[in-house]
Amino acid sequence: MDRLIEKIVEKNNPTVVGLDPNLDFIPESIKRKHFEEDGCTLNAVAKSIFEFNKKIIDAVEDIVPAVKPQMAYYEMFGHHGILAFEKTVKYAQLKGLYVIADGKRNDIGSTMTAYATAFLGKIKISDIAAEVFGTDALTVNGYLGTDCINPLLKTCVEFNKSIFVLVKTSNPSSGELQDRLMGKTSLYEIMGDYCEVWGKETIGEYGYSKVGAVVGATYPEQLTTLRQRLPHTFFLVPGYGAQGGAADSVKGAFDKDGLGAIVNSSRGIMCAYTAQNRPAEDFEECARTEAINMRNALNKAIGRL
Amino acid sequence: MDRLIEKIVEKNNPTVVGLDPNLDFIPESIKRKHFEEDGCTLNAVAKSIFEFNKKIIDAVEDIVPAVKPQMAYYEMFGHHGILAFEKTVKYAQLKGLYVIADGKRNDIGSTMTAYATAFLGKIKISDIAAEVFGTDALTVNGYLGTDCINPLLKTCVEFNKSIFVLVKTSNPSSGELQDRLMGKTSLYEIMGDYCEVWGKETIGEYGYSKVGAVVGATYPEQLTTLRQRLPHTFFLVPGYGAQGGAADSVKGAFDKDGLGAIVNSSRGIMCAYTAQNRPAEDFEECARTEAINMRNALNKAIGRL
Repeated sequence: MDRLIEKIVEKNNPTVVGLDPNLDFIPESIKRKHFEEDGCTLNAVAKSIFEFNKKIIDAVEDIVPAVKPQMAYYEMFGHHGILAFEKTVKYAQLKGLYVIADGKRNDIGSTMTAYATAFLGKIKISDIAAEVFGTDALTVNGYLGTDCINPLLKTCVEFNKSIFVLVKTSNPSSGELQDRLMGKTSLYEIMGDYCEVWGKETIGEYGYSKVGAVVGATYPEQLTTLRQRLPHTFFLVPGYGAQGGAADSVKGAFDKDGLGAIVNSSRGIMCAYTAQNRPAEDFEECARTEAINMRNALNKAIGRL
Repeated sequence: MDRLIEKIVEKNNPTVVGLDPNLDFIPESIKRKHFEEDGCTLNAVAKSIFEFNKKIIDAVEDIVPAVKPQMAYYEMFGHHGILAFEKTVKYAQLKGLYVIADGKRNDIGSTMTAYATAFLGKIKISDIAAEVFGTDALTVNGYLGTDCINPLLKTCVEFNKSIFVLVKTSNPSSGELQDRLMGKTSLYEIMGDYCEVWGKETIGEYGYSKVGAVVGATYPEQLTTLRQRLPHTFFLVPGYGAQGGAADSVKGAFDKDGLGAIVNSSRGIMCAYTAQNRPAEDFEECARTEAINMRNALNKAIGRL
């Protein structure tokens, strides 16, 4: 997690830009160009996505430390979409950004080893070790327990990568299961406690382990309680902006040094042109303005400005 | 779920063959051919996987009703692997098999819509609606609650597809969270009860809804209790064979008509040549023998033979 925290400190910005390139978000001019070249195909869509992502990255690369591509929006376009994802990862890393793959992957141990290899490790083909997606971190779901997490830990240590485990998600129904009490402790607190246990051998320079937690901006009280409860667990906080979370509601996610969390905005930055009543073609400029506004709002809320 | 059950009845076999093509499982002769053509590349690996899958499908297509490709083993080879997955799905469906994508996907509503589109629905590009993966069912993780499941239900109804929600998984640590009591009810029972609720508007001819449950073969008692508790929920039962479950341990998953569940075997069938002490090149014949043995063992255990 140190690599991520260093980038946050360097840019003085605890923001990650979500790259969830829904086709509706992409300006017609970009899509038209690729549709004219390749027809209305998944291949043309994938090329449009990559061009859009590249332009968003170019617009914010000097402001934000990280991006978070959401796997669903690439899988939606089949293997063409996955190729656009791979190119996005490489392009973002070329620009010095930390890349969190938002896949919420989960499975039994042997299968989790395959996911760990795909996202965080290297695959051996005969004697050659090849990187597949090469992302810096992966979001995962811990419903299956410790033996689902262990293969990830092994890979994280070997390749200096991290994971974020879903603890308390940002969606309206997240309480249905996550808030239920088991004795006096809620399911999400128990999941959080496991993050501390799973991470305890991998605590880095800033006091945070390689096992982070996903905790939604939409539940500010739980965010604050969890920050106290999980001192070595770095938070990835979705739900800011389009989902309703504001800068004040996420300040509880940060520690006394103003670290401890990174806040995600996807639609809020990608589609900033809609909130700013500007044409879609101005998406880059609008994204940049919104990224600066978000940085300033967060730093003000956590007292770093 | 009716489409799956009809195929089970027609073949008189409640077995699904897991297609988890780990590189180590594939005979050298297949890999060598593709490595000589394309070098030690992810592309060559993906071609090897597809050839292996095709031969397994050819060996068992008249015996089994369904196959279950595990997404991790395709993602492990990047977009080349996803192309091999797409080709495997199409080939299996051409042979009349029902295809369950084992992805254990989960996310907030808007993102789940993207996963539903990718696996079960169609994507609209301008005025064209294109199928992406086109699988018949998808495994999902319900940790996020109802608003994560709703977009899937909508797609299942529109395109006559199904989902299987993780309830009690087959791995050793599954009890860490899933067996914990909330009041008098365990987390996996609560998740199971949600499957009944989520499925209740989609009950088909055989009495089962479009919302199935994943329940591991390695916990026979819980399997039996859940069968009673969830009368409208069809079970996908992993953990048979390589993970330790036997025919007797899964019989509790079936209803009085011998329906209600489909049992998965992946390594047990793909790598049947190892258990039969035969060379890897004989994998097709060994897979066929094991598929027949498994069918007979299951039918004997549930009293249909």
